[in-house]
Amino acid sequence: MVAADNLQKMPKDTTFNLAAYLKERQKLCETALDKSIPIIYPEKIYESMRYSLLAGGKRLRPILCLAACEMIGGTIDMAMPTACAVEMIHTMSLIHDDLPAMDNDDYRRGQLTNHKVYGEDIAILAGDGLLAYAFELVAMQTPESVARERVLQVIARLGKALGAAGLVGGQVVDLDSEGKSDTSLETLNFIHNHKTAALLEAAVVCGGMVAGASAEDLQRLSRYSQNIGLAFQIIDDILDVTATQEQLGKTAGKDLIAQKVTYPSLWGIEESRAKAQELVESACIELDTFGELAQPLQALAHFITSRNH
Amino acid sequence: MVAADNLQKMPKDTTFNLAAYLKERQKLCETALDKSIPIIYPEKIYESMRYSLLAGGKRLRPILCLAACEMIGGTIDMAMPTACAVEMIHTMSLIHDDLPAMDNDDYRRGQLTNHKVYGEDIAILAGDGLLAYAFELVAMQTPESVARERVLQVIARLGKALGAAGLVGGQVVDLDSEGKSDTSLETLNFIHNHKTAALLEAAVVCGGMVAGASAEDLQRLSRYSQNIGLAFQIIDDILDVTATQEQLGKTAGKDLIAQKVTYPSLWGIEESRAKAQELVESACIELDTFGELAQPLQALAHFITSRNH
Repeated sequence: MVAADNLQKMPKDTTFNLAAYLKERQKLCETALDKSIPIIYPEKIYESMRYSLLAGGKRLRPILCLAACEMIGGTIDMAMPTACAVEMIHTMSLIHDDLPAMDNDDYRRGQLTNHKVYGEDIAILAGDGLLAYAFELVAMQTPESVARERVLQVIARLGKALGAAGLVGGQVVDLDSEGKSDTSLETLNFIHNHKTAALLEAAVVCGGMVAGASAEDLQRLSRYSQNIGLAFQIIDDILDVTATQEQLGKTAGKDLIAQKVTYPSLWGIEESRAKAQELVESACIELDTFGELAQPLQALAHFITSRNH
Repeated sequence: MVAADNLQKMPKDTTFNLAAYLKERQKLCETALDKSIPIIYPEKIYESMRYSLLAGGKRLRPILCLAACEMIGGTIDMAMPTACAVEMIHTMSLIHDDLPAMDNDDYRRGQLTNHKVYGEDIAILAGDGLLAYAFELVAMQTPESVARERVLQVIARLGKALGAAGLVGGQVVDLDSEGKSDTSLETLNFIHNHKTAALLEAAVVCGGMVAGASAEDLQRLSRYSQNIGLAFQIIDDILDVTATQEQLGKTAGKDLIAQKVTYPSLWGIEESRAKAQELVESACIELDTFGELAQPLQALAHFITSRNH
């Protein structure tokens, strides 16, 4: 506990170089993702999956997954298949959400969306294919040093985060709330808890699971990630109002045009920022008990509220 | 081996009542599927998943899965989560294949297709949600009497059967071959090996896996199911030409209209029927070594070629 207390009083950047950490971890994730999907016949579907999966992005979810695993005492190898699976699930949700029948988006991460390049049919199938890979990867590639029961728990957790109790359910309510200016804070929270926080939480908790975390530590990881998940979404909403399309790499001001209720529209920009900051502080406090080992996850939490794209 | 030889000489229907067997198994599967998905908020997505999952159908894949498990010496309980998962994956592939961006079908099993009832957005999400449930179910509900490593093998196998190396890959080539009258037999085989046979094979092989089948027995199950998978597709193609819409419960003559190359268009109807029959015989011979225990799977193989819808 002494170490944790000292850390609290110290400016984080003197003890931990987040920029270097992110760069190294992004590279590790890129390499693993690149290896995870080959290009074979029928090439088009593999190319389509790779187009979206390897389109850059911050790789925040897989990096969180690896960091949680290491904080609990596991290795990168233990968590990498799960980290890649989380990114595949995330990518699949973006591909399907961008479809004309859903949010109808033409740009994502500064590139044309999957269906604009490969057609709607292939985009739907690329999403399905990525999901299949995600589960196959965790089941096949997680090293034997991880108890098999733990791997099954990870798969169940990923399934839950993806399905009607997670991403899918959040998107349903989100689609339903479009064009309605009287969406309640309760509904808005439901949307973001399911669309954003559920997968972030699964990334972090599953990282802890493969490392053999205790039930108590999984609870800490869960509370940490719920807080940063919501902070992440609040910042996303703020950026939709304040950032340019160039910075975002996707259509800006979209929420306003779709008359979506967002946190800034409910609370104003300043209060939204303050709330996000508060959530990040709470998230960090959850992990103080891990002392120096918590540095990466705590720095990542602060990174989330400071980003401008 | 004596038992198996005797069985060969006996007319199958005197020793095994397939109709009663199918009825009982269908009921078991319906009950398990019904229980697997509740209706909670947001109700629309759960209703949409249930609409397609509980729309009847022969439940051939889950029944094959249970039968393979029992033939190897396992129990129904061991295989039921896997059987339900297979049916969820199958249903998801139907929902997505029926979408306007894909095969654009209005009817399936005599009912309006999912997107005609719930809209394209919900139909896409219902498919995604069913996939998520499929993997979650196997990971969470397979009883502890099945070795955890086996459960992981089942999940990997289901992922493969679903993804670009299975259903998804087959659908990509199928979409690509539409409107082309010069599709080769090689391409046609690729489509059906991936669109139809891969999941049938996974159903049977995974049924064996949960029962702890040896590598040799899994090979037998694999050859059995590859044969019946192809026979199944040939019969499907024949029925598309010869059956009425009422019998099929879906649009008839669709392949002809889409100028799809089919087995009857390559070989004629009679030769196609003969080929299907031959495949079924080969399938049954693979299982002769299991004697009486093979009766359900052998009777199911014959059932596939005798069906008229």
